[in-house]
Amino acid sequence: MLSSKADDFARKVRSCDTRGLARVLSMVENGHPLAHSILHSLYNPERSCLTIGITGPPGGGKSTLTDRLITYWRGNGNKVGVIAVDPSSPFSGGALLGDRIRMQDHASDPEVFIRSMGSRGHLGGVSGTTRDAIEVLAAASYDPVIVETIGVGQTEVEIASLADITLLVLVPGQGDEVQTMKAGIMEIGDIIVLNKADRPGIEQLEMSVSASFELIPDQAERPPVIRCSAQTGEGLDKLTDAIVSCAFSGTGRKATARKRTTLILGSIIREKGRELARKLVSDRYGSVEEAIESILEGKTTPYEIGEVLSGFLENKQENRE
Amino acid sequence: MLSSKADDFARKVRSCDTRGLARVLSMVENGHPLAHSILHSLYNPERSCLTIGITGPPGGGKSTLTDRLITYWRGNGNKVGVIAVDPSSPFSGGALLGDRIRMQDHASDPEVFIRSMGSRGHLGGVSGTTRDAIEVLAAASYDPVIVETIGVGQTEVEIASLADITLLVLVPGQGDEVQTMKAGIMEIGDIIVLNKADRPGIEQLEMSVSASFELIPDQAERPPVIRCSAQTGEGLDKLTDAIVSCAFSGTGRKATARKRTTLILGSIIREKGRELARKLVSDRYGSVEEAIESILEGKTTPYEIGEVLSGFLENKQENRE
Repeated sequence: MLSSKADDFARKVRSCDTRGLARVLSMVENGHPLAHSILHSLYNPERSCLTIGITGPPGGGKSTLTDRLITYWRGNGNKVGVIAVDPSSPFSGGALLGDRIRMQDHASDPEVFIRSMGSRGHLGGVSGTTRDAIEVLAAASYDPVIVETIGVGQTEVEIASLADITLLVLVPGQGDEVQTMKAGIMEIGDIIVLNKADRPGIEQLEMSVSASFELIPDQAERPPVIRCSAQTGEGLDKLTDAIVSCAFSGTGRKATARKRTTLILGSIIREKGRELARKLVSDRYGSVEEAIESILEGKTTPYEIGEVLSGFLENKQENRE
Repeated sequence: MLSSKADDFARKVRSCDTRGLARVLSMVENGHPLAHSILHSLYNPERSCLTIGITGPPGGGKSTLTDRLITYWRGNGNKVGVIAVDPSSPFSGGALLGDRIRMQDHASDPEVFIRSMGSRGHLGGVSGTTRDAIEVLAAASYDPVIVETIGVGQTEVEIASLADITLLVLVPGQGDEVQTMKAGIMEIGDIIVLNKADRPGIEQLEMSVSASFELIPDQAERPPVIRCSAQTGEGLDKLTDAIVSCAFSGTGRKATARKRTTLILGSIIREKGRELARKLVSDRYGSVEEAIESILEGKTTPYEIGEVLSGFLENKQENRE
């Protein structure tokens, strides 16, 4: 499966050639024909790289926090990768990467690699691109890889759930919001970070968070809740301790090779399956658009097409027997 | 494709045999083998039934509003169908159907059919079930069909987007929330309903809504914003006028047969595609779980499996030539 060209690119990533790395990430983002071979060559289920997801409502100071975490891990001698994701609206398509400039403090540090990602390009959507970009940065020995997302929609949850450990970042004044967040969104946080803890309203926020835990089933473990201020640096040592302890205790959701592999394969199955089904419909009707015309003309229905798709493999299996 | 048994069920739905209808909805929900044939028989792209989605954060009085809309359309002599959806958390799985009891005022009215739906059963998830249930109720001559969802997550947005016209329901005190909602979520509302308009904070809410419109691209039409009180009934005439006018002006998102068909086919393609890809992986590796074992043993990677899936149709086409 491996072409020598793909192998060349994979080698550049492994040796952490920064330009080669940037090029490969673009290939992944744009669905370049070689991308899959490169990813295949780089994939290592046993990779040790820790991935940290940072999510939460806008205005939570996530970029400042990311900045602090970069500084912490650089201080430990680690190479740090950052993927800043803005899935933007599925309906309109803007991008608000404004205050991410902050992270540019580290832009001149060759051991820090920062990449912004939007929702364009990749067939699997921005979560597909992010999934693959993490593997590329891990193969280039970045550890940790921090994935920061804007917002709390389903896409953001999906992206955050790609990480081994996810921080849900909240700030005072978001208590009402916490109440309207579904239990599920609270549950994606392996660690709940109460940022800007020096501001008024911190007590109320902590109460809202505790109240929301009541929606979590009894047997599930409550995530640690850490107060800090990314701005002043207060409480950050407690946060990094919690991250490290979470990583080593194995409570990090996908800390194991098996969990991570299951997640990646599931996501690829969804993506390729959709591609496949579209091709099969096109095989039969010329294109998906022509299938729609046939339905409108009363010649078939979406449900009959669904049955044709379901029947496709059954027929194939019968022929084989 | 039609078995006579499926035909029997389809006939019962069309003649609005309530027990037959309930039975078919259960079959749809549980993925019964006959469900697709029944849905195929019932599908009519030109159906005239208006579907109204009602969505918004919890506490917005959506059930009371649904109740009022039922009363309004019953007064016009229409038969009204209601699908109350609680996708619940993808992570935990509770259901909070509490105040929906209210709608039971209409429970004894044979011309009102109310059905609750959770996230279990259907392979396409709750949005797949809802999609199919709408077609069933439409075939049974319910018009309108009201689809009410809890919450504002991606699933709720998906479900609401199945409707011809979607009401986004907000109440005073949710101004902050509106600000953190992404432009996309505001955009799914064909009509923005400011409910509990007799409460303090209504001005501030309306200002937040106006501010959020600034995120919508210029060329897009701003949805009407209607103040009302489902409790007292005030402003409801303006709301029903807006719904009717939206339905007839064709600004309702999927008011056309083409838009609706495109949506339904797209959703079936995603669902069946995933099923197909899982089967193909199982064909080759025994099961998806065994494929994961192979990856962990270093024999393959998720990306190679992805390429196998991509290559599947290409090989098939080559063999044919």
